[in-house]
Amino acid sequence: MAAYPGTETERRVPHETLESAVARIFAACGMPDACARLLAATLADADLHGVHSHGVMRVPDYAGRLTPPEGLSAVATKIAGVRGGVNPEGRPRVVRDAGAALVIDGDNAMGQIACDFAMDTVIERARRTGVAFAAIGNSNHCGAMAWYVRKAVAADMIGLASTNALPTMAPWGGADRIVGMNPLGVGIPAGSEAPFVMDSAFAACARGKVVVYNQKGHALPPGWALDRDGLPTTDPAAALDGLLRPIGDYKGVNVAMALGIMSTMLSGAGYGTRLGNLDDGPHAGRDGQFVMALDIGALTDLAEFKREMDAVIDEIHRSRRAPGTERIYCAGELEHETALAYRRDGIPLNDETLSDLASTAAARGVDLSDLLEAARGRTNLSI
Amino acid sequence: MAAYPGTETERRVPHETLESAVARIFAACGMPDACARLLAATLADADLHGVHSHGVMRVPDYAGRLTPPEGLSAVATKIAGVRGGVNPEGRPRVVRDAGAALVIDGDNAMGQIACDFAMDTVIERARRTGVAFAAIGNSNHCGAMAWYVRKAVAADMIGLASTNALPTMAPWGGADRIVGMNPLGVGIPAGSEAPFVMDSAFAACARGKVVVYNQKGHALPPGWALDRDGLPTTDPAAALDGLLRPIGDYKGVNVAMALGIMSTMLSGAGYGTRLGNLDDGPHAGRDGQFVMALDIGALTDLAEFKREMDAVIDEIHRSRRAPGTERIYCAGELEHETALAYRRDGIPLNDETLSDLASTAAARGVDLSDLLEAARGRTNLSI
Repeated sequence: MAAYPGTETERRVPHETLESAVARIFAACGMPDACARLLAATLADADLHGVHSHGVMRVPDYAGRLTPPEGLSAVATKIAGVRGGVNPEGRPRVVRDAGAALVIDGDNAMGQIACDFAMDTVIERARRTGVAFAAIGNSNHCGAMAWYVRKAVAADMIGLASTNALPTMAPWGGADRIVGMNPLGVGIPAGSEAPFVMDSAFAACARGKVVVYNQKGHALPPGWALDRDGLPTTDPAAALDGLLRPIGDYKGVNVAMALGIMSTMLSGAGYGTRLGNLDDGPHAGRDGQFVMALDIGALTDLAEFKREMDAVIDEIHRSRRAPGTERIYCAGELEHETALAYRRDGIPLNDETLSDLASTAAARGVDLSDLLEAARGRTNLSI
Repeated sequence: MAAYPGTETERRVPHETLESAVARIFAACGMPDACARLLAATLADADLHGVHSHGVMRVPDYAGRLTPPEGLSAVATKIAGVRGGVNPEGRPRVVRDAGAALVIDGDNAMGQIACDFAMDTVIERARRTGVAFAAIGNSNHCGAMAWYVRKAVAADMIGLASTNALPTMAPWGGADRIVGMNPLGVGIPAGSEAPFVMDSAFAACARGKVVVYNQKGHALPPGWALDRDGLPTTDPAAALDGLLRPIGDYKGVNVAMALGIMSTMLSGAGYGTRLGNLDDGPHAGRDGQFVMALDIGALTDLAEFKREMDAVIDEIHRSRRAPGTERIYCAGELEHETALAYRRDGIPLNDETLSDLASTAAARGVDLSDLLEAARGRTNLSI
């Protein structure tokens, strides 16, 4: 399990148990059952693929945005950092239809509800038009891009997805946080090989990693961050007070800007600083995304395309490795294999995440005993 | 002229003179006049914007691909590295039309002829469908991406363009050249500000820069290149024998792969190593590209969009600068200002480029006296 080395405080839980437990929490936040299940599925799916940063560790934050626990005063709510603001019953809908390009109003639902609807819509549309694009506004945090592009892959299409993100970078040569790291997801079907699935942001590292380095008192690798004046730093505290560094300097920041503009300005969402800032978080309903699907079979022979993809991936596997590299993965391959293993052996969750889930559930009167029971004693050391 | 510091052997030539002189060379290579003028315009436009790597310095190579000079034997042609193979009379056409996604057969014309036709076609289509995408096959080198996306910008659309490129990178952790740096162009209209125009490849630097460092005997900056075993190097000779390093490590190589796949596999073009290799060059007619246009006005209020773009660009200009940065440019802004200055003062060309143009013209009986006359004595020192 290269992606997620085990620790003694890590427990394994079955994928289905995790998903249904989290769905109950979101249902208790006022979400209709189908939406609660969808939101839970997207988060559990990220954990299943080893992408825990976008998994169920987000549940307390999301639950707070959806609806603060009952009984908390406005002051207590503010202190607890649970701000509400997201519409648990939001129903996204198409508000503009230009034939193959659409605008979708997320109705201030969680971004997952809006983007999943959007990807379904563009997949359906691309069956008629070859390609379809949707800009999504009035939206919120939407989790990992991989979920959406995998839906396109399952429909034998190339999928693209991107989202605006809170600004953590400066334009190249600058010192102010005004550009998000705005990730891009791309999914491309293969034949017998795992599909090509990339999901990357355009900063050199995630901000969460800098937080961990800071907690542990370790210096950052060079090239990850800039201080508040825009100068390179390896001090994680200076980086947290400063900026993440874009990959490829001006190149990465330009790609991030383009993705951010396309994610927001076509749908009335808030680009960059208009979404919010790191200190106060995002304004509810100001986030934006875009998704796109390209129907391979409408342009070329699908089976031949998949054979060529297999050949490209095989060429990677057969290529020479640099010293120290045991194996070369194509994009998404490690996550694909992780998902197979975790589906079989259970998903590792650390005690902190389990405990956060338990308290979020308890505050809303949700019974989580099945999940906690499943986790009890199932540390990954026993597997 | 920050983009292109002058030297004593640099001459200024008027944009129109350069463009029409180069058009005569391409016409003498057997291209129909309109195609010769278009190809010349794309190259002169790159020089006009200060992007000389994709400008008229490519003329000898292109002329050789289009048609070797008369009188050369097959052996002499091979020795001179002029291989022909590109169809000077190629007429690109739509061969598959799925509504908003198209496949275009470049008829083995120069990539500029195919891609310019493709961008015109998707712009026209996007007026009806909101978005349109074209995959281009049976194509060749297509120059800078910026030309195509600026056409979309001129039509008040967001433009995207990408191309497959000869493999210069390895998958991350690898040591074999099997991935191109496959550039992405994005153009987004603004109001009173210059449009957002990015055109970047996903290697840390251009291979031509490594060549220059090698010629001068300078060490490369760290992070630019890997040796033939896939290990970091600052030795330009080892880099030329090895690999360019992707920006953001696995991130850059994944983006490049996705762009390369979308540029080739939907249109029967040759992905990666199937296009050719650095030693032998590309196989004629095996290159591929894609272009896309997104009609802003079909999705949102165009004037409001442009106002927002102006505000985003203004925010960049007003933002704090890192020490040592005199001015922060938005993507494409420096090139925009360079074009204004060069249109007024002439385009600087060094003696080597002028001399290459002269000999390429002479070998085909083309009179270049107007260009050489214009250049004579007009070094940039006199301006």
